[in-house]
Amino acid sequence: MRTLEVSLGERSYPIHIGSGLISDSALLERSVTAEQVLIVTNETVAPLYLERLEHGLRARNTHALVLPDGEQYKTLDTFSRIIDRLIEMRFHRDACVVALGGGVVGDVAGYAAASYQRGIAFVQVPTTLLAQVDSSVGGKTAVNHPSAKNMIGAFHQPVSVIIDTETLGTLPGRELAAGIAEIVKYGLIIDPELHGWLEANIERLTSLETQALSHAVHRSCEIKAAIVAEDEREHGKRALLNLGHTFGHALEALGGYGTWLHGEAVAIGTVLAARTSQRLQWLSADDCHRIENLLRRAGLPVRADGVDPDDMLEAMTMDKKAGRHGLKLVLLRAIGEAVVAAAPERDVLREVLRGDARA
Amino acid sequence: MRTLEVSLGERSYPIHIGSGLISDSALLERSVTAEQVLIVTNETVAPLYLERLEHGLRARNTHALVLPDGEQYKTLDTFSRIIDRLIEMRFHRDACVVALGGGVVGDVAGYAAASYQRGIAFVQVPTTLLAQVDSSVGGKTAVNHPSAKNMIGAFHQPVSVIIDTETLGTLPGRELAAGIAEIVKYGLIIDPELHGWLEANIERLTSLETQALSHAVHRSCEIKAAIVAEDEREHGKRALLNLGHTFGHALEALGGYGTWLHGEAVAIGTVLAARTSQRLQWLSADDCHRIENLLRRAGLPVRADGVDPDDMLEAMTMDKKAGRHGLKLVLLRAIGEAVVAAAPERDVLREVLRGDARA
Repeated sequence: MRTLEVSLGERSYPIHIGSGLISDSALLERSVTAEQVLIVTNETVAPLYLERLEHGLRARNTHALVLPDGEQYKTLDTFSRIIDRLIEMRFHRDACVVALGGGVVGDVAGYAAASYQRGIAFVQVPTTLLAQVDSSVGGKTAVNHPSAKNMIGAFHQPVSVIIDTETLGTLPGRELAAGIAEIVKYGLIIDPELHGWLEANIERLTSLETQALSHAVHRSCEIKAAIVAEDEREHGKRALLNLGHTFGHALEALGGYGTWLHGEAVAIGTVLAARTSQRLQWLSADDCHRIENLLRRAGLPVRADGVDPDDMLEAMTMDKKAGRHGLKLVLLRAIGEAVVAAAPERDVLREVLRGDARA
Repeated sequence: MRTLEVSLGERSYPIHIGSGLISDSALLERSVTAEQVLIVTNETVAPLYLERLEHGLRARNTHALVLPDGEQYKTLDTFSRIIDRLIEMRFHRDACVVALGGGVVGDVAGYAAASYQRGIAFVQVPTTLLAQVDSSVGGKTAVNHPSAKNMIGAFHQPVSVIIDTETLGTLPGRELAAGIAEIVKYGLIIDPELHGWLEANIERLTSLETQALSHAVHRSCEIKAAIVAEDEREHGKRALLNLGHTFGHALEALGGYGTWLHGEAVAIGTVLAARTSQRLQWLSADDCHRIENLLRRAGLPVRADGVDPDDMLEAMTMDKKAGRHGLKLVLLRAIGEAVVAAAPERDVLREVLRGDARA
């Protein structure tokens, strides 16, 4: 087991990464100190790992809430179901919510923990690659609004993140690829070396090679932890983590949150961000091609066929990165160097989006 | 105009207290720096003050959302309506929510501001005495759950509190009295001098004498600001502000949030806390009588006639002050000296509650 720390003063917390951690009673006892525990999970993950986790937490008064699986359930209604359960069970302020699952489970359970009695403890046990390398770290919690992603939420740091890399063994290929999209993101925004490593080793990830996965998860968490420690509330640098996300969130919203996995939408969005950067002559055609090629090798979609450019532009203006000074985008100056920049004019974006639709 | 400060580092903010502040354009321009402004108010307050506030904010892109009036609307549904409106209007992260009204409006609008895009700016313009002396200061925001009060919420400090004491002139007597209950609370928990002043001047408050009201509002905000600055998240001293509230919240929940005004429930709860303190021989019968008498002179209820003691006990265990070590109550060691203590045994509480029902 390797342990990283997210340094946030009195809200600092550890990220434990290792194999078999879901059954590690000693670690769980240390990480979940509350007596009342609600495990929030979903119907896909529960049959695989719930019993193991409950067994590891056997000393606690543990209950489980099993949600339906899918981004379309990341809603205020699901949030409300979690709150209802906490109230039914008469959970106190010193209770703990444990999120066992992917990004959706972590986001909605985290927002419920943030809101119940104005905030109770919360432990992340991410079981998808995407959640392990991204959403479980950093305290962003949220649910979607029908017209825009993650619009309702809170910053609420977990007290601990427990990453059991063994769970990746049961992950469907499509979900695995979706997680790789976020790993590619880290390389692109800040770490050219990671990008190079991915270009050399991407097939080791898609074929679930333990050592490669472990390296990628560790490095991703390391980058994320450093950025979050520097800018918890996204007043600056943290915004770089949204590379591909403004495009991606728009795609997700247009598809009704059921068409694309988040990581898939981010992959397409990353290509669109790269193309926009190329159109502005910030990024070479060659680098643009390298990015697209890597994502494709990971098994990710790189085109949003059939999406109307004007619908996309409309949905993008709903994004949280839109401010009083217009829409902002994370763009690339080079592989390993992202910047937050004002979006180019609508015509330019439309051109990029159209080019995409035609390709 | 007098100005106090709530000292919370980078989250510090001013409380402005004075007559006619709702129309003070210069103050409003300074306090509301966002360009996009949503005023959340209710159908009682809107006809009286909305136009005046909008006029004062004329340089802004201002919209208003008028909610129905009453504690029974302090729900997740109302929260959701505010979020919907913010999204419809495409409000950005740098937008501002202004709460114009009493405690319900402030609490639900504040929770929406806390949650929209994980937190946007928020200004309190309280128009009831209760909101002016208590709920608008300190950053507690929440909505009720059908079975327990304020169970879903956030700590989200306003960027400014603007208290226009002129608005008290239109306040119904019942609402005025409800606010006085919270002023009495400040004297009881920490300021025997304020308690003495209230005993000498209570009729000046009920007859809306400007100078007396202004003194009481200012002193109450001063006490609250000091306590919040010392203990923002209620890990210690801030809990004293809940004197009478565990009993009171239970009464409110049992009455379906439509029977008692919050301040009325707190008045009854304060008498019950005093009686519990007396039963434990911490408080003299004479002091207990003084407290009850003062609340009665303010026009407040001091008995929860017809409420079943066991229903009360049941509802009290749902309260947020209940923890793994059982229920805690704020009790009185003397007038001006409150403590957080483990609740006495159920039988003792039942006795106090029954005594109350019989009286």
